[in-house]
Parts: sequence; structure tokens; C-alpha cells
Amino acid sequence: MPLFSGFLYIPPMPNEESFARLPGFRDFPPQELAFRQHIFDAWRRVSRRYGFLEYDGPPLEGLELYTAKSGDEIVGQLYNFQDKGDREVALRPEMTPSLARILADRSRSLPKPIRWFSVPQLFRYERQQRGRLREHFQWNVDVVGEADVSADAEVLAVALDGLRELGLDEMDFRARVSDRRLLRAVLEEAGVPSGEMESAFQVVDKVERESDERTLERLGELGLKPTAARKVLELLQAPGLERVQEHYGDRDAVGPVLEDLHRYLEDLAALGLEENVEVDIRIVRGLAYYTGIVFELFDRKGELRAICGGGRYDRLLELVGGESLPAVGFGMGDVVLGELLRDRGLSPHFRREVDLFIVAIGDDLRPLARRVAAAERARGRSVVYGLRSQSVRKQFSQAGAEGARRTLVLGPEEVSRGVAVLRDMQDGEEREVALESFFPDRREGL
Amino acid sequence: MPLFSGFLYIPPMPNEESFARLPGFRDFPPQELAFRQHIFDAWRRVSRRYGFLEYDGPPLEGLELYTAKSGDEIVGQLYNFQDKGDREVALRPEMTPSLARILADRSRSLPKPIRWFSVPQLFRYERQQRGRLREHFQWNVDVVGEADVSADAEVLAVALDGLRELGLDEMDFRARVSDRRLLRAVLEEAGVPSGEMESAFQVVDKVERESDERTLERLGELGLKPTAARKVLELLQAPGLERVQEHYGDRDAVGPVLEDLHRYLEDLAALGLEENVEVDIRIVRGLAYYTGIVFELFDRKGELRAICGGGRYDRLLELVGGESLPAVGFGMGDVVLGELLRDRGLSPHFRREVDLFIVAIGDDLRPLARRVAAAERARGRSVVYGLRSQSVRKQFSQAGAEGARRTLVLGPEEVSRGVAVLRDMQDGEEREVALESFFPDRREGL
Repeated sequence: MPLFSGFLYIPPMPNEESFARLPGFRDFPPQELAFRQHIFDAWRRVSRRYGFLEYDGPPLEGLELYTAKSGDEIVGQLYNFQDKGDREVALRPEMTPSLARILADRSRSLPKPIRWFSVPQLFRYERQQRGRLREHFQWNVDVVGEADVSADAEVLAVALDGLRELGLDEMDFRARVSDRRLLRAVLEEAGVPSGEMESAFQVVDKVERESDERTLERLGELGLKPTAARKVLELLQAPGLERVQEHYGDRDAVGPVLEDLHRYLEDLAALGLEENVEVDIRIVRGLAYYTGIVFELFDRKGELRAICGGGRYDRLLELVGGESLPAVGFGMGDVVLGELLRDRGLSPHFRREVDLFIVAIGDDLRPLARRVAAAERARGRSVVYGLRSQSVRKQFSQAGAEGARRTLVLGPEEVSRGVAVLRDMQDGEEREVALESFFPDRREGL
Repeated sequence: MPLFSGFLYIPPMPNEESFARLPGFRDFPPQELAFRQHIFDAWRRVSRRYGFLEYDGPPLEGLELYTAKSGDEIVGQLYNFQDKGDREVALRPEMTPSLARILADRSRSLPKPIRWFSVPQLFRYERQQRGRLREHFQWNVDVVGEADVSADAEVLAVALDGLRELGLDEMDFRARVSDRRLLRAVLEEAGVPSGEMESAFQVVDKVERESDERTLERLGELGLKPTAARKVLELLQAPGLERVQEHYGDRDAVGPVLEDLHRYLEDLAALGLEENVEVDIRIVRGLAYYTGIVFELFDRKGELRAICGGGRYDRLLELVGGESLPAVGFGMGDVVLGELLRDRGLSPHFRREVDLFIVAIGDDLRPLARRVAAAERARGRSVVYGLRSQSVRKQFSQAGAEGARRTLVLGPEEVSRGVAVLRDMQDGEEREVALESFFPDRREGL
């Protein structure tokens, strides 16, 4: 809408809404920031425990990094635009393409396997719904350069340990794992033409949310005969490993995949994680680049969306112009996880805290308060004092608001004797301390 | 350029450039990430030492948050676009408007002064030059709700301590401080009409980079008589406090400002920072919303751009629809600071490290390796083992590449005796340890 409409200039209205936060974005005032940091800290501790190194990339990337390689769903939800240099760019909707791009130049000189993690903020323009945001932070953990299924197990172990580190246990969550090659073999056997395979994956992906009739109908649309469609549906209704083994175990395309899955489960058992994991061939994952084992983590009550998703993507690095390297990884967002932690009473108690608040009785002593503060801060302690002239009562009230563990009271009489009064704010105990003790290196007087 | 040109479809060329990083953006592979983290850690430690709480906001904001209140320079360099809901949005070029917006809803319920800090990534579409990036991370520290000049001093102290925390000292940097009200009084006195004051500030801002003739000419263009222009230039050539005091100290608009500046310098002296600070009335700062004392930090050699800039902005919160609250703060970027640290040899040595690498002699022992790893990780240690079947030599070589402090060697003979060999990778010392010691809570055998 042009501001000049004919000869009538309509000035822009002052509008409180103009300065509102964009819908789907979050502010993090200190209490929310502390909760976010609590999650990030756990993610970082666990990553390091498994020998992963942290990396990061830019939040803005060339659009083409996503259009060819990510799933249709993501590309339809990109925050993309043309920059002032006429480049087509997008806010990153996921981290894996950036990882592949960063490694494309460097992987040859790095010892394998490469174990990297990151905690990027990601952006998607989704239709606004309750609990659906347009940004989130996502823990990304990847092992690059190892094709063995033990790398898949290691990566899932990291994800599960990330949840346990935050206080969740096997009663709270479970991992559902599958292998895209398995589902592909089953669907091929049932008569899905290879050109319809992606569509068939989408039918499977939705099977838990749709009626049996609708699923049969959709499978029929993909070219399956009614008997074959019914057989696929039955399999999807009892989606564990046994049934697949029983019905398809002797097929060429299925045998080696089942063997991989069995080794995967054994590795997870050796890591003590068997209780958390179940095979479920309905797990597909939305991203186009997955090639093998895929997994999702869910809350056991089934109230929330997936907490985490990941899998093997052996061809992505090559696709962005890098070395051909197998890779496996996951992304875990902070939003669904945060909801789960809050539901389970696992969000940490937030409180402000400083080591020391210095109370000056009279303005003449405010410079001394600053000198003591500087000395204590040089020792690494957190120290606050009033920034304006105010009554002792107000200073104590501010000490309380700041969460001071101790106060140091500088009074004229005490200072003239070379001391000050240190008060423990928990038990109220007071004692005199020599002012000299704050300046042990100084010869001159106070 | 349309892809369909007449009836000739020209397919997009596969192009390695498509997957390049955008110009002006940085990747952070682990070594660079570690350097960035080293800086962030120092910033956070110092912030907490002064009682500041961390917050964050979204990297994307409504465009109007910047167009009315930031400087022209920033607005001309915005990454702005229309989102899929037809909102005019921009990647944040600075943090202060977001802070003002976040506080607008909350400040009434918060105890004053509000001490908040943040480490956001910021974005500007600047013309590409050596060393000029289009993003950086910026330490933002603000005291909101305190008009007293001691808040200005406190905020500058935080900035200076941030540099000292990273190993820099007064030989490396200095703070140049001024007060916009002072410069305004001087320029008014010299005959600059109030409508030209912003332009006059820009002349002053550039005086160090331009010839005297050019500066006189530009002051003339703003309406100054040659004598007045020469007097202003002389002042800008000896820009300390004495000269201003001498020539303008008795003016109504100048006296109280000088008094504030003296108290500011006294407060900084009490904090032990007098060596780092000099008054320089040429310091203006580019942002439109500053109202009082402003400052910049520079490397003493004068080789780099400003490390940090800040000042008082007493009207911004009101402008975005919040409570009328005085405020003072600064932003310190990671790019110039990083250059300075590297110049001074103050970037930390990067090395990969894990506590333990487990070597399995024979594939039969790989499950045991996993169980030991899981047990050690549960104790918080970082543990890595080979993810594929490989020779003992290769496993040791991987242990070296991972920076393992110790290796645990699981051999069939030792394991049959219930032990394994722990080797210190620094001194090569080896000793046998009981496998039981890894699983103290387990009754059953290994």
C-alpha cells in the first residue's frame, strides 16, 4: 500500500502492535533464558562425554542448499528472500545441509569418524497453531565417515543420554527405530512402483493419524491391489521386527537390513539402552536425504509431537560437492522437550543470586564500596552495590531483590576502625572483617 | 531472470558456487567455535560478576522496530524482507531495540535497576570489504532504570573488565568518552542551527579521518562563520575536558554536564579504571537514540576499528511504548576484538581431548568396551572407542587423534582374569585395573 494515495497523504498510525514480537518467535527474559541454558548445558555435557566437538554455521544460507536436498515440507516453509546483492537466501530450516557444506571443503583433512555437534536456532514459516513456533533451537549431533551400524547406535545413545541428563527416564520416553530400506522392500514386494515410493512413505508416515479405510484407499491409489494393500496395512498395525522377519526375512533386499538392525539393537543393549528402543517400521522421517536406519523419540504418554528425529544420510555430503562420506545424525528441538520437562516437573528453579551486596552508610563511603567491589570482582566474585544515593533500608531491600548471599555494611564508625560488617543473608549471622583483607596487595592505607 | 525464456527452457547450471557460504558470513568449525566460546565465556563471567542476568530475543523482528529509532546508517544496511504473511521484517542489526521491546511489557514488575546482558548475533548488509563482515556476535550490557551517572560508570567498567578478562591490559586499549550534550552546547554556541545538529555530529564523527580544510568547509556548509568553524576545529584538535571547561564551562548547558562527567571519572577512578579512560568530545556514536554520555573502546595502536561502543539512551523505552525509563548500555562485537586478541597472541590453544579411549583386542570384546564406556560416561567422563572392527594399531592411532588422556586396553587374557590395562598417554605408564571397578553397583559377573 503506497503511503501517498492520490493527493491525500495518510500518515502511518502510531500502533502498539508495530512493536510486538513477531508471531511464532520467543523472547527469553532471564527466567526463560535460564531454562533454555539448562537444556543447552545438558546437551553440551552429553556431547562432550561422547567425544563430540561443537561447531556452528551461519543462520542465513543460499536458498539452493535446501531446495534440492531437503524434504518438500521444509522447502514449502522456508523464510526465503532476495538480499540486497540479489542473492536468493533463506534462514536455515535445518542444520544438516550447512554441516554438509562446511565439511565439503574440510573433510579430507579431518581424521574419521568426524564427531561434531551444534545447537543452532532454526526457522520455519509454519501456519500459526497452538504450540507451533516458527523458530526453535535444535541439538544436532552427527557422526560422519563411518558406515558401520555401530555409528547409528552411538548417535541414538547420545540422544537418549541427552534426555536422561535432563532427569527423564525410560518411563518418560521411548525411541522408535526403523530402516527405510526395510519399508522400501516391503512396499516394493507389495507392488508399489519405484516412482511412487516417496508417496507411499508419506502414506505410512500418516498411518497412525488416519482411518484404516483411508490408508487402504491411498495405498490403492498408488497402484496396490486390495490384497496387497491389506497385507501392508496389517504389517503397519503390528510394526515390530518379528512380523517383518517372518513375512519378508528371506528376501534378498531384506536379509542384510535385518542383520544390521539386529546388530544395532545389540549395540544399544551393550550401552544399556534396550529398554528405550523398539522397532517400528512406520517411522519414515520427512527429510528426503535419509538412506538407512531412521529413528524418532517420543514421550511415552504420546501427548506430544516427536522430541527428536534422526537417521543415516550416506549421500548428502556428495550432493553438496564434498567427499562421498557416510553419515548419521539427529536433531532434537528445545520446544517439545521443554514442554515435556515442564510436564514432569523437571524445569529448574530460577533464582537471582550474587555473592555480595555492599551497603554504604552515607555517600562518603560509596567510593570505598566501589573499591571493595572491584577487588572482590577481581577474585571472581559477583558483587553489586547501589548505583545512587539511598537509605540503608533501601539498600538492604535491593540486596534482597538481587538475591545477595552476603552483605558487607560499610559504616563510618567501623570504617574508622578499619573494619566492616559482613552479614550472612541466610542465617543473619554478622561478623566484623578487616577492610585490609580486601586489599592484601596494597601497602597504602584505605 | 525468468527460467522460461520464450519456448527455450534453460535449466539451472549445476554450480559449485551455489553451495558456498554467503559472503560476509562465517562458519565455525570446532577450532573457530572454541575461540568464539572463549570470548563468550569471558563476557558471561564478567557480566555475572557485576550482577547482570542473561536474556535473548528473536533474530527476526518487525521492520518498524528499527526504522524510527536506529541511525540512518543501520537502516540502510538492514537485511529486510516481506515474510509469507506479508509482514515487513528484518534480521536484527542491533540488540537495544529488542531489549526496549522486551522490557516494554515487563519493566513495571521488575525491581530497578534492571541489569541485563545478552550475546546476540547481529546482521548488516554492508558493502563487502576486507575484514567487514555481515554478521557478528555482540555482547550487550544494559542498566535500565537508573539515571545517575554512576550507572554509566558501572557499564563502562563492565566493558573494560571484559577486555581484561581476556588478557588485554591498559597498554592494549583505551576508552574515549564524551557527552552528546556537551558537544551540542559547543556547536550551538558556535552557531549550528538545531536542525543541522545531526549533520554537525556527523562532521565531528569524521574529523579524525578528514583534512582540516574539508572539516572547515563542511562546518561552513552547516552555517558556521569562518571564525566559529575554526574555533570548533581547534577544540576538536585538543578534545580533552580542560579545553571545554576553559572555553565553555560557564555556560548554563555545559556546567551540569561537566559536573556529571567529573563524577563519572571519579567513579571510574574508585573502580581502578582511570588509566583506561580519556575524555574526547569527538566521540559521537552513530545511533540516533543516545542522549548523554557516550563512549568507544579502541586498541591503543589505533590499527583497528572501535572494539565497543555505548552510551545513555534515556528515551528509547518510551519510544517503543514502554515505561519512561533511563537506560545506559554498550555493545562489543566479537570480530574486531578477535583480531586484537589474535594480534596480541591471546587466542587460546585449541586441542581435542577425551578422558578415555577404549581399545578392544578382538571384536568379541567390543560389547564390553561399550559397557565400560556407558559406565564411565554415567560418571561424567568423556569416552570414545572405535565404531568399527579394526586393528589394535589403528585403534591406538585413533586414540591419539582424539586426544585421549588415557586408554583402557581390553585384551582376552586380561579380561579372563577380570582386569584391563589402563595406560596414561602422557607418560606411557601402564597399570592393571579390575573391570569390577567400573561396575561397582552390579552383583552379577561381567
